[in-house]
Amino acid sequence: MSQTVLLAAFEPFNGEALNPSWEAIKTLQGYTAIPGLRIACQPLPCVFERALQVLEHALAALRPSVVIVVGQAGGRPDITLERVAINLDDAPMVDNAGQQPIDTPVIDGAPAAYFTTLPVKAIAQALHENGIPASLSYSAGSYVCNHVFYGLMHVLRHRPRVRAGFVHVPYTPAQAAYYPGAPSMATTQVADAMVITVKAALDDLQHLPLPTGASH
Amino acid sequence: MSQTVLLAAFEPFNGEALNPSWEAIKTLQGYTAIPGLRIACQPLPCVFERALQVLEHALAALRPSVVIVVGQAGGRPDITLERVAINLDDAPMVDNAGQQPIDTPVIDGAPAAYFTTLPVKAIAQALHENGIPASLSYSAGSYVCNHVFYGLMHVLRHRPRVRAGFVHVPYTPAQAAYYPGAPSMATTQVADAMVITVKAALDDLQHLPLPTGASH
Amino acid sequence: MSQTVLLAAFEPFNGEALNPSWEAIKTLQGYTAIPGLRIACQPLPCVFERALQVLEHALAALRPSVVIVVGQAGGRPDITLERVAINLDDAPMVDNAGQQPIDTPVIDGAPAAYFTTLPVKAIAQALHENGIPASLSYSAGSYVCNHVFYGLMHVLRHRPRVRAGFVHVPYTPAQAAYYPGAPSMATTQVADAMVITVKAALDDLQHLPLPTGASH
Amino acid sequence: MSQTVLLAAFEPFNGEALNPSWEAIKTLQGYTAIPGLRIACQPLPCVFERALQVLEHALAALRPSVVIVVGQAGGRPDITLERVAINLDDAPMVDNAGQQPIDTPVIDGAPAAYFTTLPVKAIAQALHENGIPASLSYSAGSYVCNHVFYGLMHVLRHRPRVRAGFVHVPYTPAQAAYYPGAPSMATTQVADAMVITVKAALDDLQHLPLPTGASH
Repeated sequence: MSQTVLLAAFEPFNGEALNPSWEAIKTLQGYTAIPGLRIACQPLPCVFERALQVLEHALAALRPSVVIVVGQAGGRPDITLERVAINLDDAPMVDNAGQQPIDTPVIDGAPAAYFTTLPVKAIAQALHENGIPASLSYSAGSYVCNHVFYGLMHVLRHRPRVRAGFVHVPYTPAQAAYYPGAPSMATTQVADAMVITVKAALDDLQHLPLPTGASH
Repeated sequence: MSQTVLLAAFEPFNGEALNPSWEAIKTLQGYTAIPGLRIACQPLPCVFERALQVLEHALAALRPSVVIVVGQAGGRPDITLERVAINLDDAPMVDNAGQQPIDTPVIDGAPAAYFTTLPVKAIAQALHENGIPASLSYSAGSYVCNHVFYGLMHVLRHRPRVRAGFVHVPYTPAQAAYYPGAPSMATTQVADAMVITVKAALDDLQHLPLPTGASH
Repeated sequence: MSQTVLLAAFEPFNGEALNPSWEAIKTLQGYTAIPGLRIACQPLPCVFERALQVLEHALAALRPSVVIVVGQAGGRPDITLERVAINLDDAPMVDNAGQQPIDTPVIDGAPAAYFTTLPVKAIAQALHENGIPASLSYSAGSYVCNHVFYGLMHVLRHRPRVRAGFVHVPYTPAQAAYYPGAPSMATTQVADAMVITVKAALDDLQHLPLPTGASH
Repeated sequence: MSQTVLLAAFEPFNGEALNPSWEAIKTLQGYTAIPGLRIACQPLPCVFERALQVLEHALAALRPSVVIVVGQAGGRPDITLERVAINLDDAPMVDNAGQQPIDTPVIDGAPAAYFTTLPVKAIAQALHENGIPASLSYSAGSYVCNHVFYGLMHVLRHRPRVRAGFVHVPYTPAQAAYYPGAPSMATTQVADAMVITVKAALDDLQHLPLPTGASH
């Protein structure tokens, strides 16, 4: 029986010409190398609320068993697997609709946070075994990425069998060429990383008890 | 009428000879420069559970109106005001009792996270106005610092009038001398920062709506 | 009339399984896409003196019009074009023959430094235009890389028509997977960067007067 | 018999309100704690050529046995002891007189570089023993700092008994408060560091053979 993985990624924001998350994800449209698996790729506007509406629409239409949202983390050198989404919108810059919410909840009255349901330690290990730099992250920020991550986990809170989470990716090399000192990752490698992430999420649904926490 | 502020800070861990948090806090014992205010200083063992027990004992004994726990964040260049504590123990190294919990909750069945009740943006602004580098942080890690921060907010969850939170501080210069490239902060400046933090927590109980969120 | 470009790069050192400089350069052996140009690729041992002997032998055999030595700069995020070689061996670790010279000259009685004769600003601009992160560097260190760079420029000091210099490259992704926080660059991109570097060195022998110096 | 140490440091530049080098050095005016030693403190304009003229005038007037120029290195976390000055002016921004030389020599026809004559490894060790973060640096950049350092070593090239060099210092905390993520150092600690540097330069004129070179 076939199952569906939904990969969503963002359009460019903050004046950038591209977003490395969508550059990588769009190359996986029509990906058929994993038998019995359909990968659906969904672009998201970098807009509070609307991004979440688009994602929820895709969730309803596709009924995926795994959902991974991917976003840009300019300045980070590696693939980062987010552990926790917080119920806080606190935008350091306007979104693509000109909104800049400050210190408001993503969803009023909802819990302070949700943890990812992806097996992030197993994924990190699979990425390392494939020669791809990756680590866990304990903060997805307080901008549109965290907003969508939190909203996703809230929507799925009563559907524990759907694995869901968020992955941040570095600048592309072409972006980093404009920011002295910024690290980058090739788009082909980000795409490879996402395939490995999907496989690890499907194969190893156990959360590996590796000592890779953060001292601060 | 007098009120009490409780400042708690950690003993050394991970083989260090000192902990910059306690080095600064211990200098504030008997601090009397703010009329009507008593500052109580409490050292904490760097041990899961026991640190929290010591803190809870001090809370019960002192009935403070503000509680700030301070910890070491080796590698950070500035005073960081933590916004959120998560219900996760995931230790990257053993604590001072040889324990290393991996992926277990701080408190079983409790919420995924608690937000600080300190006015962290007002505090950051006060620190800047006094020439002290400071910023907000969206992750206190998953080690003993986050454990104590989470436990503190859980204990106080039904006492909204008590302001509480967590502050991370850099290495001392003497520590940083052993870690090439590590930033540091003078202990006297950390102590000054904590006095300013206490004043801002008492004076300006409004949370300033400044656009200082994190994009990731 | 045909001309020859010599690209030399290092074998692994310091316990690494590979060296990103040779991984990239070896893919350019037999490169024929630039008419009238022959690219010769030479591996170098990571050994003081011996590396220089191997390079000098290749120089004598090939009579190249451009010579570029490439080395690993673990921790740097981009392609770095070295401006200056200094007459100092000061090894922070042993070389592959167990030697660790401390504060000795590369060549006794020779000048304190030599500048590269590559048009490094034109090369940096060409790399940026091709979407590859790159910058100038004002220090090639004091280990085998600087040793070979200095020795090369000394050998060529009376042959001003031969352009020569040194390029440092980041870790491969597979190396960076072992060093948390380390940036990396895909080997295919490093190879592309070297082709662009060679073209820029051949095409634009003028040194572009761009304001890309270093404040410190 | 009394001897004189000349400490020179820069005025603010690039729109800053202060320069951490002069903030520290000016506190040492009239320093008399080392018997037989006179410390003379000289402010320098952040202007190509003029800074060097002011320094040369002070050298002629004071006939010091040790000369140390101190400058700001915003972004560095520790005291950095410069090893080498290069014969290159390549300004990334205008100086305080509006000049921006690009790729011109400091002194036409002079050597490519000069090494410091301070015992920088002994100084670094003395700083560490006093709990002050410090390291060697292999590039003083290509702006006014390197210009003055190079010019100083050129002037003294025939006076080997005069020890001379350059020390870069971090932002003050008040400066770093404006640059998110920038490390800083207390001005009192920078002043302490300079006293230790002077003592080490006078006491231990041997260059300690420590393995603290740079791999790149």
